[in-house]
Amino acid sequence: MAGIKDVARRAGVGVGTVSRALNGSGYISEETRKKILEAAKALDYQPNELAKNLYRNKTDFIGIMMPNLEHPFFASLLKHLELELYRYGYKCMVCSTEDIDNREREFLDMLKRNVMDGIIACVDLPGDEEPETERPVVTLERNWGGGIPMVHSDHAMGGKIAAQVMLEAGCRKVLHLYSQGKDSPFEQRHRVFREIMSAHGVQLVEAEAEWNHMSYGYDLEMARRCVRQYSDVDGIFASDVQAFGCMAAALEMGKRVPEDLQIVGYDGTEITRMTYPTLTCICQDLPRLAQVSVQTMVALLEGKPYPEDLVIPVALQKGGTVRWT
Amino acid sequence: MAGIKDVARRAGVGVGTVSRALNGSGYISEETRKKILEAAKALDYQPNELAKNLYRNKTDFIGIMMPNLEHPFFASLLKHLELELYRYGYKCMVCSTEDIDNREREFLDMLKRNVMDGIIACVDLPGDEEPETERPVVTLERNWGGGIPMVHSDHAMGGKIAAQVMLEAGCRKVLHLYSQGKDSPFEQRHRVFREIMSAHGVQLVEAEAEWNHMSYGYDLEMARRCVRQYSDVDGIFASDVQAFGCMAAALEMGKRVPEDLQIVGYDGTEITRMTYPTLTCICQDLPRLAQVSVQTMVALLEGKPYPEDLVIPVALQKGGTVRWT
Repeated sequence: MAGIKDVARRAGVGVGTVSRALNGSGYISEETRKKILEAAKALDYQPNELAKNLYRNKTDFIGIMMPNLEHPFFASLLKHLELELYRYGYKCMVCSTEDIDNREREFLDMLKRNVMDGIIACVDLPGDEEPETERPVVTLERNWGGGIPMVHSDHAMGGKIAAQVMLEAGCRKVLHLYSQGKDSPFEQRHRVFREIMSAHGVQLVEAEAEWNHMSYGYDLEMARRCVRQYSDVDGIFASDVQAFGCMAAALEMGKRVPEDLQIVGYDGTEITRMTYPTLTCICQDLPRLAQVSVQTMVALLEGKPYPEDLVIPVALQKGGTVRWT
Repeated sequence: MAGIKDVARRAGVGVGTVSRALNGSGYISEETRKKILEAAKALDYQPNELAKNLYRNKTDFIGIMMPNLEHPFFASLLKHLELELYRYGYKCMVCSTEDIDNREREFLDMLKRNVMDGIIACVDLPGDEEPETERPVVTLERNWGGGIPMVHSDHAMGGKIAAQVMLEAGCRKVLHLYSQGKDSPFEQRHRVFREIMSAHGVQLVEAEAEWNHMSYGYDLEMARRCVRQYSDVDGIFASDVQAFGCMAAALEMGKRVPEDLQIVGYDGTEITRMTYPTLTCICQDLPRLAQVSVQTMVALLEGKPYPEDLVIPVALQKGGTVRWT
C-alpha cells in the first residue's frame, strides 16, 4: 500500500507539504496541490486514520452502552442511533453490559484513554462515583446525576395513558409488571399508573422484574409465572415482551384476549405489530429518542448548547388486546 | 489529565523510559519500573490509546456490517458477535447498510484507512469488484468470492428438515416465501426444499421477497399480501418475521393454525418462542455462527490457520403451528 512518502516522491515535494495539502492546513500553491492530489490518486493513497486521530486527539467514534443488543427496544434504538450518528459523521462502537461483570467500568475507562470521543449510555452508572472524564456522556433513560444530560420518554404520560385505557376498558383487577432502577425516569410510569388505578378503586397486583435483566427468556418466564399465580386478573400492564409472554400463558390456559383479559404493552417495538391480535401499547418514539441523544452529544462535542427539551412524548397504539368501545 | 511527561517528571526519568516501562519493551531495571508505575498510579495516568494504535498500526476494532440492526436475526447475531469479540479483546464497530446508498463501499474504505483491523460482513459485496484490502474480511451468510472465508448455516439441511416437516404434516399445497442473493449459501435452502416438495407431488406456490430488504414492515406487508392472494394453501414456509405475518393474516381471515394452515418458520430467533402457539421453525445456531466467525477473524489477524468447517448445523424447533402426530 502506498504511503505518504511515496506520494511525496512522486509529486517531487516533501512529506510535510503532502501532509499540509491533504489536511488542508497551511499555504500551498494551487499547482503543487494539484500535483500532490494527482500523485495520491495515481498511487491509490489512503491516509492512515491512526495518524490523523493522534494529531486531532479525536477518533469520531461514539460508544453506545446497552444492557442487551438483542432485546427489541435496544435493537431498534441502536438502529436509529447508528443512523443518526452517521448523519453527523460519527462511527458507532457498541458494548453490551448484561453478560459481563464490570463492563460499564471498562468501557468508561476506554473513554479516558481516548478510544472514543463520547458515550451514549443506556445503562446505569457503575458504582456510586461520578464519571470522571473530560469527554462527554449522554444518557438515555438512565439518571447518572452530576449534570449529565439525560434523554428519556415522557413516562408520566405513558403511565397516564395506560391507566386511562385500563379504566375505559372496565378493568377491575390489574396485574402490573414493573422494574425499578436507581433514580430512573421510568419510575414515573409506575407512579402515575398506580395513582390513577388507586384513585379509581381498581385493585392492583404488582410483580417486580429485575432491573436491567433484559433477555426474552427472563421476561417470558416471569410473565408465565405471574399469569399462573394471579389467574383472576382482568387486565395486565407490562413491557412488550412481558405482555406477549402474558398473552401466550393466558391463551394456553384457555383464556380469551381481550374478552377475558385485556393487555397493554409498553415500548411499542416492531414486534407489537407482528401478531393477530396486534398488541395495544404505549409507543416510545425511538427515532426521536435517538435523534435528540445524538444532537445532544454533538452539541457537547462542539461546545454548543444542547436541546433544552430532552423529554420525548409517547403515543397510544390501539391494538386488539383491549376492547374498544 | 496527566500525560506521559508528568509521569516521567514525577518518576525522575525520561519520557522514553516511561514509554518502554509501560509498553513492556526494552530493558528497564526493576527499581525504575516500580518508580514509574507508582508515579503513573499516583497521577491516575491513562495512556493515550491513539498513540499506541499508531505505534502498533492496529486499533483492536472489528467492523460489523449488517443490513439492519433491528431485525431479530441480525440483532441476535450482533449480541453474540460483540460478546465473542470481547472475549478475544476486540471492540465492535457497527454499520447498518440498508438505509444508506453505498455505505458498504464507505465502510470498506475505512478498513483501508486503518480505522479497524478487520471486517465481519453480513451484507453483499458492493459492486462486482473484489475487495482490495490487506486487512482480513470474514463473511457471514454472504459469498464474496476471492477466497474470503464464509461462515454460514447448513441451509441444505434446513431446507430438508422443513420439507420433511411439511410432508409428515400432510401438506398438499405450500406457499414458499424466499429471497435470492448473488451466489448466496441461502439458495441451498430453497433448492432442497423445492426438490423434496416436487419429488413428493406437493404443489408449490412461490413468492420472492427483495433480497436484503430486512425490515419488519416490509416482511409483514408482503406476508399479508401473499396470504390473501394464495388463500387456498395448507402450508407456509417463510422466515420468522414473514411466518408471523402470515399467521396474523390467516387468523384475521378466520383460519385456524395449525388445523387449516401449518406454518414453518426459518431462523429460530427469540420471537418464535414468544407467542401461543409457538412457531415451528428451523433454528440457526446464532451463538455458534458468531463464535466461528470471530475465531476465523482472529486466526486471520494472527496469521494462523482458521477453523476448517465453517458450515454450522441447524435444528428443528417443534412449535404449535404444525400438527405433530
